[in-house]
Amino acid sequence: MSVYIAGIGQTAVSEHWDLSLRDLALDAIVRAVKDAEMDKKRIEALYVGNMLAGELAQQEHLGALIADHAGLLPIEATHIESACASGAEALRMAYLHIRSGEIGCAMVVGVEQMTDVLTPRATVGLAGATDADYEVTHGFSFVAINALLARRYMHEYGVRHEDLALFPVNSHANAVHNPYAMYRNEIDVDRVVKAPKVCDPISTFDSGPICDGSAACVLVNEESMKELGINREHCVEIASSSCATDTLTLSARDAPLVLKAARISADNAYKRAGVEPGDIDLFELHDAFSVMSAMSLEACGFAEKGRGCELAKEGQIRIDGSIPICTMGGLKARGHPVGATGVYQVVECVEQLRGEVGRNQVKDAEIAMAQNFGGSGATVVTHILRRV
Amino acid sequence: MSVYIAGIGQTAVSEHWDLSLRDLALDAIVRAVKDAEMDKKRIEALYVGNMLAGELAQQEHLGALIADHAGLLPIEATHIESACASGAEALRMAYLHIRSGEIGCAMVVGVEQMTDVLTPRATVGLAGATDADYEVTHGFSFVAINALLARRYMHEYGVRHEDLALFPVNSHANAVHNPYAMYRNEIDVDRVVKAPKVCDPISTFDSGPICDGSAACVLVNEESMKELGINREHCVEIASSSCATDTLTLSARDAPLVLKAARISADNAYKRAGVEPGDIDLFELHDAFSVMSAMSLEACGFAEKGRGCELAKEGQIRIDGSIPICTMGGLKARGHPVGATGVYQVVECVEQLRGEVGRNQVKDAEIAMAQNFGGSGATVVTHILRRV
Repeated sequence: MSVYIAGIGQTAVSEHWDLSLRDLALDAIVRAVKDAEMDKKRIEALYVGNMLAGELAQQEHLGALIADHAGLLPIEATHIESACASGAEALRMAYLHIRSGEIGCAMVVGVEQMTDVLTPRATVGLAGATDADYEVTHGFSFVAINALLARRYMHEYGVRHEDLALFPVNSHANAVHNPYAMYRNEIDVDRVVKAPKVCDPISTFDSGPICDGSAACVLVNEESMKELGINREHCVEIASSSCATDTLTLSARDAPLVLKAARISADNAYKRAGVEPGDIDLFELHDAFSVMSAMSLEACGFAEKGRGCELAKEGQIRIDGSIPICTMGGLKARGHPVGATGVYQVVECVEQLRGEVGRNQVKDAEIAMAQNFGGSGATVVTHILRRV
Repeated sequence: MSVYIAGIGQTAVSEHWDLSLRDLALDAIVRAVKDAEMDKKRIEALYVGNMLAGELAQQEHLGALIADHAGLLPIEATHIESACASGAEALRMAYLHIRSGEIGCAMVVGVEQMTDVLTPRATVGLAGATDADYEVTHGFSFVAINALLARRYMHEYGVRHEDLALFPVNSHANAVHNPYAMYRNEIDVDRVVKAPKVCDPISTFDSGPICDGSAACVLVNEESMKELGINREHCVEIASSSCATDTLTLSARDAPLVLKAARISADNAYKRAGVEPGDIDLFELHDAFSVMSAMSLEACGFAEKGRGCELAKEGQIRIDGSIPICTMGGLKARGHPVGATGVYQVVECVEQLRGEVGRNQVKDAEIAMAQNFGGSGATVVTHILRRV
């Protein structure tokens, strides 16, 4: 059974001190309903991706809360949490729900408010993505863990900070033309390398920002597409969806520089969609930290081990390259409102496949891939999307 | 497509200061695998129901964490949170995943550690089930909200505390013979009514305890049942599954004494299973507070509005009554480890349908219903189970 994305909505990533969590979610939902040109009363289930509201705002139970605020009661509503992969996981649950045949139309919203919260401790909250008992108690923050990975990557493969810096440079360049991006300014390698360190070797420009945002998608099957009078030309097909896991703790991995779950998740996604890496026209990867971009390209078959930066050096990751990545700014420059990120990635793929992104348009884009990480690749959710 | 529960496991509800959250989950998973007499390597996805680990233990991302600890990597793993309905929601997601045709076998675990935690504030955590902005900021705890409901119920229908007290008396009587129950002692109406008040009129005996626990189920489809060599006689069919929502805020409900989401969820479950209330042989309802038992019986069609206590007075809710409830002690006496509760309820239904509970056995039980609430009935998940 085919599942389609019939509508998309996104809020500009920013510090939204004027909006509550539920208002943020509502904004994206309203935009997605409008984009689908449908009656919201036809939505049969709501899936909410969010990581931090419990800890930062003491608000759990976001399924029913947001269903109520969006005027969707009494529909089924569920909150999905897989750290920073919560957004893509929520999308995947909606996809599976439609595939079960029980419903024909679902709303997915990823939402996160990290700046204007009751408990201003996003760093403590984000540490919940990794192992509280075996990593965090030893003083590791989430940035610290990624810094260890980056340092090891540089040592093992003879890569310089200047090489890794090409990823945020690319993300910033693409964000300039994205009205929903948080940082719409170009940067250069020098600026990345000389910026203050968050945790050596990770500088402020190697790391996604703490921010607020929400993004939403309407999913339908073939039957509901017709019943709801949705324009087929406007739809994008979810060609495949997959999820795989790895240890949260880096020290428990055989080869910490290999994102095993990303490889398995991507391989399953390729197989299920009947495509190969060479068929992917653009790749929205999880550039929470620069080193993750390199490792993600390697895990998904676009570069040999340790050679991810080569693609950046050759300009292959640019809009006009062989494998454009983070085409709307990625986590680094569009922003990384954690539980919403996976939905933003998919929304951007849809925009690309519908040919709507102007200066950032990947020419003749037919197939796009989005990959969302929870932790340092401990949960990896991959979606492949196809133009109808 | 039919989905079956092929194996069940549960940890005795208690204060488990000697077990970590992951060890608690593992215990139930190992028991469920053993009960199904299967190879755990055949499990294709893990769904974890949990409400409070993020806030109380600063540990999110329980899907991958528990998949790792249970030796299930690199399978798909997802954490589901719908307040106290997290357990049943996790089960429902596994059920839908199998119904999608993508997998044939899934593990569901509900786990909660509320007593031995980093941040000893279960009451604050539980308030996350209700509206942080519009209720909790005004000083409402979750118990306070239920106390308001109970007081209104008593006023509106001329019900006395002595009438509501019959529900915890029943739950305690049934827990005596359940080795997994937290409180295995009988109580009487006088003890409930004279016990110290948590929040008037709710006494300590009207309220489920703060505790630790985990429960697990293995779900399979017909094909996997054969492939894995699972004994069909040992299986119980999930005849239907459904979820509905209502406002978190009580003040936003037209009729706060009517559990609208419970009614819708139950009606859908009846319809999908092709049964009526009269066909249900036992009902594991969500007796987090005494008043919820009465309201739940009314919402699900077993009693007229305001007449739920009559069933208790007539002895109809006892093991040998017309609609036995909380047959293994319910939330009150078996215990209410919030994110695990929904799975315990289903595990107990399975035990009953397999005829394994000795003195608590409901004679010739063919069809059982489990209903799990998030908040004061803001998310309601209903499962109807049938003997194969």
